[in-house]
Amino acid sequence: MFDNKEKTNLNEMGEFGLIQHLTQTIQLTNESSVKGIGDDAAVLDFKDKKTLISTDLLLENVHFDLRYVPLKHLGYKAIQVNLSDIYAMNGIASQVTISIGVSSKFPLEALEELYAGALIACEKYKVDLVGGDTSTSTQGLVISVTSIGYAEADEIAYRSGAKEGDLLCVSGDLGGAYVGLQILEREKQIYLENPEIQPDLEGKDYIIERQLKPEARKDVVELFRHLHVKPHAMIDVSDGLASEILHICNASNLGCKLYEDKIPIDPMTYETAREFGLDPTVCALSGGEDYELLFTVPQSDYDKVKNQLDISIIGYMTEPAAGQKMISKSGSEHDIVAQGWNAFTKKD
Amino acid sequence: MFDNKEKTNLNEMGEFGLIQHLTQTIQLTNESSVKGIGDDAAVLDFKDKKTLISTDLLLENVHFDLRYVPLKHLGYKAIQVNLSDIYAMNGIASQVTISIGVSSKFPLEALEELYAGALIACEKYKVDLVGGDTSTSTQGLVISVTSIGYAEADEIAYRSGAKEGDLLCVSGDLGGAYVGLQILEREKQIYLENPEIQPDLEGKDYIIERQLKPEARKDVVELFRHLHVKPHAMIDVSDGLASEILHICNASNLGCKLYEDKIPIDPMTYETAREFGLDPTVCALSGGEDYELLFTVPQSDYDKVKNQLDISIIGYMTEPAAGQKMISKSGSEHDIVAQGWNAFTKKD
Repeated sequence: MFDNKEKTNLNEMGEFGLIQHLTQTIQLTNESSVKGIGDDAAVLDFKDKKTLISTDLLLENVHFDLRYVPLKHLGYKAIQVNLSDIYAMNGIASQVTISIGVSSKFPLEALEELYAGALIACEKYKVDLVGGDTSTSTQGLVISVTSIGYAEADEIAYRSGAKEGDLLCVSGDLGGAYVGLQILEREKQIYLENPEIQPDLEGKDYIIERQLKPEARKDVVELFRHLHVKPHAMIDVSDGLASEILHICNASNLGCKLYEDKIPIDPMTYETAREFGLDPTVCALSGGEDYELLFTVPQSDYDKVKNQLDISIIGYMTEPAAGQKMISKSGSEHDIVAQGWNAFTKKD
Repeated sequence: MFDNKEKTNLNEMGEFGLIQHLTQTIQLTNESSVKGIGDDAAVLDFKDKKTLISTDLLLENVHFDLRYVPLKHLGYKAIQVNLSDIYAMNGIASQVTISIGVSSKFPLEALEELYAGALIACEKYKVDLVGGDTSTSTQGLVISVTSIGYAEADEIAYRSGAKEGDLLCVSGDLGGAYVGLQILEREKQIYLENPEIQPDLEGKDYIIERQLKPEARKDVVELFRHLHVKPHAMIDVSDGLASEILHICNASNLGCKLYEDKIPIDPMTYETAREFGLDPTVCALSGGEDYELLFTVPQSDYDKVKNQLDISIIGYMTEPAAGQKMISKSGSEHDIVAQGWNAFTKKD
């Protein structure tokens, strides 16, 4: 991947040289990608299917901290986070564009790492990188990703489609990404106080990977097709379970009952949360960045989903007047309140 | 548009409140916009047409200077610049997404101004704002726009489609945006040295508007349909005429002859360039940001384009071995060299 020289100055390459250098190996693999990088716009062909578009902005020191996020992981995660929005519509992601603003002091090799991570994600998820923009930034690193996908009209799962009585389900497990972040933040503080001390991440691979290298749940969307399940409503868990449940309830004008003891939490997440004096349930409800899929299915699909190891039935949808409630392990009922991560209140 | 309070703190609103506030008046007008803001992804329907996607990143102090760019103009320009890429494919722009990263110290009213400008551009060009992202930025203002459009497969004009003997044409006039920028930069310096002095923009409205409020040439794309002209190749003039001509020549593997005396330059651009000691032709060749359309048509279309007041025939395409040449007013021949604005060499 690297040239012989260790550090190449971006100023020497110029914008066109840089784009060409970073994208020269890209090959289009999807039938819907008619024309990728190299013209004023990409050209896509979704035939009679609907086009899905989602976009995310990732800013240094707000969404990521380069002191502990390796650039290759960052590129990978930037793509995953955005593909997750297409899967959350029950669609198939097929293309992305990636725009990067970066200080001209950044060496080319660092940018190559970032792109390498993005391209690994594209290859793994079979999406084509079809466009983007690179620019110098006078401040921090800026990443903007737009993902594009498709679905048949009747496959699309909106947030607003939930019905009273639907089962509320979630894929995978929750809270891990947030607890992984706590470990990384702790080790950063220790490092800042004493740079001699190596980070202690021993045995915490799973939850650190949940934070640094999340996987969008394309496999769940494929499972739905395999099981002939059409989720009534779906959203991805980016801001925490509580916030996402409320989005579905509000968009669908429904209440819900969520059972605390049904929320899937990995043992490592549970134990590590406890080590930090955190309530594991709160980590799942408010932590965010898990990129699992939260969805509702009709009760008639119960037999199809109940034996799927990677899907948990965590509650059900109710009439709106019943409110949005969590039944705690002790049996008491609480209002579900969104306290998810908020880009405008986070201080960093 | 404004609430009674003069300044509202973004921290008080939170991310969801902010998006809702900024987008609450948006109504979808295009048949292809199935679902806009409010779900994980927008849903679009282009039926049997091809989908076109383009994205741009605009960064404070690189692409714009808030010391002389009003926020409403900035929002307007951010959309125009991106729509221009869809028109440059000979497509119809139909949707945009806009992501904004902004310091939480920015008052809500400033962000409203930016959105107001973007929405004026959307309304004027009949495109729907269907998505985006807002985030706090620890540094400067960040704007990322993705534009989406459509075209029939045989309408799309790639950079690579030019044929030997094609007429090389450009819409409007060139160099004005660059000369307008010189005036704004001069007045900024005067202001920085003596804030008492009011900027002297007297009589320079046209070229200042070319810089602050460019118009994407949707009308030219509509004219093509009206005239039954299909450009063989097309690109928008964002980096200067020379750079764009070379893009078409390289992508089409052709040479060209460009006639200096045919390059359309407005008298105000010409005079003001002279005042600054600049060669007006160089301003047109290398200035950029004019957002006019550069295109080639077969000679058989000569009668269709020759009497269009807003289209200039500036040269023709040749075999590759003839090179890319400009014939100067004195009759001498020069190589065309790209010296356009370069995001990685600009120092600001």
